[in-house]
Amino acid sequence: MSEIHDLIIIGAGPSALTAAIYSTRENINTILIEKGVVGGLMATIDKIENYPGFPEGVEGLTLAMDFQTQAEKFGAKIELAEVQKLKKSGDLIIVTTDTSEFQARTVLIASGGDHRKLNIPGESEYAHYCATCDGAFYRDKKLVVIGGANSAIQEAMFLTKFAAHIDLVARSEITASEILQKKLEEYVSSGKITPHIGWTPDEIVATDGRVTSITMHKTDAPDEKQNIKTDGVFIFAGIIPNTKFLTGSDVELDGSGHIITNQDLMTNVPGIFASGDVRSGATKQVSSACGEGTTAAIAIREYLNKVSQN
Amino acid sequence: MSEIHDLIIIGAGPSALTAAIYSTRENINTILIEKGVVGGLMATIDKIENYPGFPEGVEGLTLAMDFQTQAEKFGAKIELAEVQKLKKSGDLIIVTTDTSEFQARTVLIASGGDHRKLNIPGESEYAHYCATCDGAFYRDKKLVVIGGANSAIQEAMFLTKFAAHIDLVARSEITASEILQKKLEEYVSSGKITPHIGWTPDEIVATDGRVTSITMHKTDAPDEKQNIKTDGVFIFAGIIPNTKFLTGSDVELDGSGHIITNQDLMTNVPGIFASGDVRSGATKQVSSACGEGTTAAIAIREYLNKVSQN
Repeated sequence: MSEIHDLIIIGAGPSALTAAIYSTRENINTILIEKGVVGGLMATIDKIENYPGFPEGVEGLTLAMDFQTQAEKFGAKIELAEVQKLKKSGDLIIVTTDTSEFQARTVLIASGGDHRKLNIPGESEYAHYCATCDGAFYRDKKLVVIGGANSAIQEAMFLTKFAAHIDLVARSEITASEILQKKLEEYVSSGKITPHIGWTPDEIVATDGRVTSITMHKTDAPDEKQNIKTDGVFIFAGIIPNTKFLTGSDVELDGSGHIITNQDLMTNVPGIFASGDVRSGATKQVSSACGEGTTAAIAIREYLNKVSQN
Repeated sequence: MSEIHDLIIIGAGPSALTAAIYSTRENINTILIEKGVVGGLMATIDKIENYPGFPEGVEGLTLAMDFQTQAEKFGAKIELAEVQKLKKSGDLIIVTTDTSEFQARTVLIASGGDHRKLNIPGESEYAHYCATCDGAFYRDKKLVVIGGANSAIQEAMFLTKFAAHIDLVARSEITASEILQKKLEEYVSSGKITPHIGWTPDEIVATDGRVTSITMHKTDAPDEKQNIKTDGVFIFAGIIPNTKFLTGSDVELDGSGHIITNQDLMTNVPGIFASGDVRSGATKQVSSACGEGTTAAIAIREYLNKVSQN
């Protein structure tokens, strides 16, 4: 095994890149290991209106490239590989990827998450997965919201702030909490939300690049079909945190598979930190992810100082 | 008294403006109350290299104006006034300024802090107050660091990552922790830091806009004078959080006068939140302040939803 790095960052999304801007600017020897796209989920967002500093909004991909340029300017190095294992060995942490093995004094897990997909036609081109990000584009429009758990109900109610009307589609039943279900009833009574329970979406239909409707079938009677006219579709089927490589490590996860941290964003394993969407309690917003990257980088600097004192 | 706002934000720095971008974009009726300059301390920074999204760096004032434009675009209103009192009255919070009185369901305190000043000639033009922000501009240069408490010693050691040599000036004695003092001795032995204990700075001297030296006198023998050649001066005399208006409120502060919050950035008083530099545990970085503004705005949205359910 080769060089001992001060810091290995797993991921290259906004939280990872911000941490790298801070750490490399302070001469902390840092590499980032990314399995997919630099910029993470951010790079897939058409237009970000709520990242501070861009009054006209900014394309997710543009912002991702700017983050990368900024981090690389200070000396950050990005390796393209998939992390498979993380193991503490004495004072060091061994990170095993599909192509190589790395060792470091500290690790920041900023591996993000992926939206759970329905895998239906039209989804990859047209579906939205974040109401806070994209809801404001649908003022006074008609929307379809897909999902029946807490997040889907919450986000559907939230989207009524913008949309004139929402059709809520759930494959089987509404599994949201009783309080949320009760609250939902008010929205149904007032005509703002129309529930379609027991319907499975088949396709998001678009004409000339604009969503026009969604087609679906009755879950327990596949021949019975229906379509709903709409201007946009939001899918809330959950986010899957990228923590598979932690199987067999001692890093503690919460019930949904997100990483538990303390106020300094350190996990239960000394020297291993977590920030951004993969962290338990994350708000899943770009600016929060960046803020956490900064906080983690500063905590890591202090941790490295303490370790080097011994 | 007039209108009941959903949210009053005290301050208009990066944390406040980010929270306002989020809250107003979601139709939460929001006003900001600022006593000084929109952008807060950020607006006074020459060049910010570590706010993600600006690979070439960005002027603090430019970034502040962009934040303001972005927040106002979504409907944020900024009142120029000084908050004097904060008081809970039933479910509402009454905010008293020098010119008027406002009421709201929630308040976000994002009033920041001010660097404690020495009030010597040259300070306002040339002194730096943030090593993480400005240290990297002094690679291989000579620096003077002023201060004797924990932060001054920590930052002086940190600045040796960049600077070739540091003169550390303390008015009376080094009050930093024993561990830090011991660590400092190593830097002194290796010749990286030269301490000048018992000296009081008189002036930061510059020629053609560039710092050349600092003059000082012996604290207990004012006629004894000395000057040190240097390329830059960092002052770490502490940050004074802007919380004077909380006198008489029930909001809990830590030993240094910063506001204590929980994970949702809510204070001990329901409905009153805090974010950014004024918060206990803040990293005093623009991106963290923004991230906390986002987290607070989302927590405030959820709090308002809960309150409206009762």
